[in-house]
Amino acid sequence: MSFVEKVRAIQASSRSLLCVGLDVDLEKIPQHLRSLPNPVLEFNRQIIDATQDLVCAYKPNLAFYEAMGRQGLFSLYETLKLIPKSVLTIGDAKRGDIGNTAERYAHSLFDDFGFDSITVNPYMGFDSVQPFLSNPEKGVFLLALTSNSGSKDFQRLKVGAKPLYEKVVHAAKKWNDKENIGLVVGATHPKELQRVRKIVADMPILIPGIGKQGGNMQSAIRWGCDKHGQLAIINASRSILYASSGKDFAGAARTEAQNMVEEMRRILPS
Amino acid sequence: MSFVEKVRAIQASSRSLLCVGLDVDLEKIPQHLRSLPNPVLEFNRQIIDATQDLVCAYKPNLAFYEAMGRQGLFSLYETLKLIPKSVLTIGDAKRGDIGNTAERYAHSLFDDFGFDSITVNPYMGFDSVQPFLSNPEKGVFLLALTSNSGSKDFQRLKVGAKPLYEKVVHAAKKWNDKENIGLVVGATHPKELQRVRKIVADMPILIPGIGKQGGNMQSAIRWGCDKHGQLAIINASRSILYASSGKDFAGAARTEAQNMVEEMRRILPS
Repeated sequence: MSFVEKVRAIQASSRSLLCVGLDVDLEKIPQHLRSLPNPVLEFNRQIIDATQDLVCAYKPNLAFYEAMGRQGLFSLYETLKLIPKSVLTIGDAKRGDIGNTAERYAHSLFDDFGFDSITVNPYMGFDSVQPFLSNPEKGVFLLALTSNSGSKDFQRLKVGAKPLYEKVVHAAKKWNDKENIGLVVGATHPKELQRVRKIVADMPILIPGIGKQGGNMQSAIRWGCDKHGQLAIINASRSILYASSGKDFAGAARTEAQNMVEEMRRILPS
Repeated sequence: MSFVEKVRAIQASSRSLLCVGLDVDLEKIPQHLRSLPNPVLEFNRQIIDATQDLVCAYKPNLAFYEAMGRQGLFSLYETLKLIPKSVLTIGDAKRGDIGNTAERYAHSLFDDFGFDSITVNPYMGFDSVQPFLSNPEKGVFLLALTSNSGSKDFQRLKVGAKPLYEKVVHAAKKWNDKENIGLVVGATHPKELQRVRKIVADMPILIPGIGKQGGNMQSAIRWGCDKHGQLAIINASRSILYASSGKDFAGAARTEAQNMVEEMRRILPS
């Protein structure tokens, strides 16, 4: 099964486009967990228990785990073991390097950590992306137009008549012979999301930037989904993880995730 | 002391522009080390002992260590402790992420690992670079024109009259108020290296791609150095690390490094 087929299958059975970003910050997790031997792992365990029937994906950002040193990486390994096979894992690492080095990252992320998919920075071009594409079951989300304000600095520069990010989108489409490439487009750019979806009718689009960053759920779904109401993967991190800072954090996370999924189902043509 | 001043001071006292890329591959290190409890650390220890008086910098690429899992990251921590303060360390990680996440990477690489400087991918724009710039003593090498063939895919695309990588160079110059930004330009692009050095007279340029990748030492020095014959940091990895696959590997690495440094000193106007 190619990566895009896997995304379709998981979204069909979960009836959810929601991805929870497991960007866990030791300083933000509830006080009562902090005295445990591994607070981050326990936090993730409870978040995953509480939300796994509501999501299509979990997306840990590696920076948060690397910042905690070796203990953090251990927590990430163990967290991945807790995620059921029926939910997609996205390693948000934004790697990109020359061929022989990219192979090392691919091995680390796909084989060692065991992620189903990862994010990759396209700036270094095809031979930096190719080593991540060898297994059709493993997915690569190429950064196209990111949700942050700095996306204007280079991604929106005009190359001839088109912005640079569209060049990335067209390249991704051309490189997608194994059907395992997706794109990252921030919910903060609804018009551009619509444009990207027109170019890539059948590629997954990972959409961060809902909530605190200002992106809107309705337009993310309307412009991000394909014609079957699939392939948009809508990420939320802090609004779910830190819905409550008390002992009820997991229940509060579930309520928040449930609200988002219900909103998605209202918006989506069924 | 700002990062650029540190590079000048180290290059003045070492009389060397050579950076050894510690891209250590377990399968390539000599057989007799492989039965040790930590072969990579022992390999690095001997390479560093044999070459530290000949180099201005060591540059471990994080992918090689991440690919070895937790043991690899331990080896990297311990390797950094072996490098004398008189030699610059460059964490070749090519990170880049939105602000609150980039802060985590900065903490991990600068504070936890303790690198003097790192490589950063500029694709996500200023707010993804800024968190790495807060400490003037810690350096950031922004990828401009990389040594690989994929550099043509996006980096050389014309934005108006100028290629994209020049836009990155001009942005780097503008963002450099703390004098802690450098650039990465592959030795495989000598004409473009000359052009970049004209734009940034006083910024360090990290130059990979000498040797196997086809870059030429003479042009790297001629076009990469500033008017004082400094600020080019010329990387070699495999040609030094694997100069011999036998028990004499450290001595062979020293001979190779010495040959390169002597070549540099012949080329440089003294």
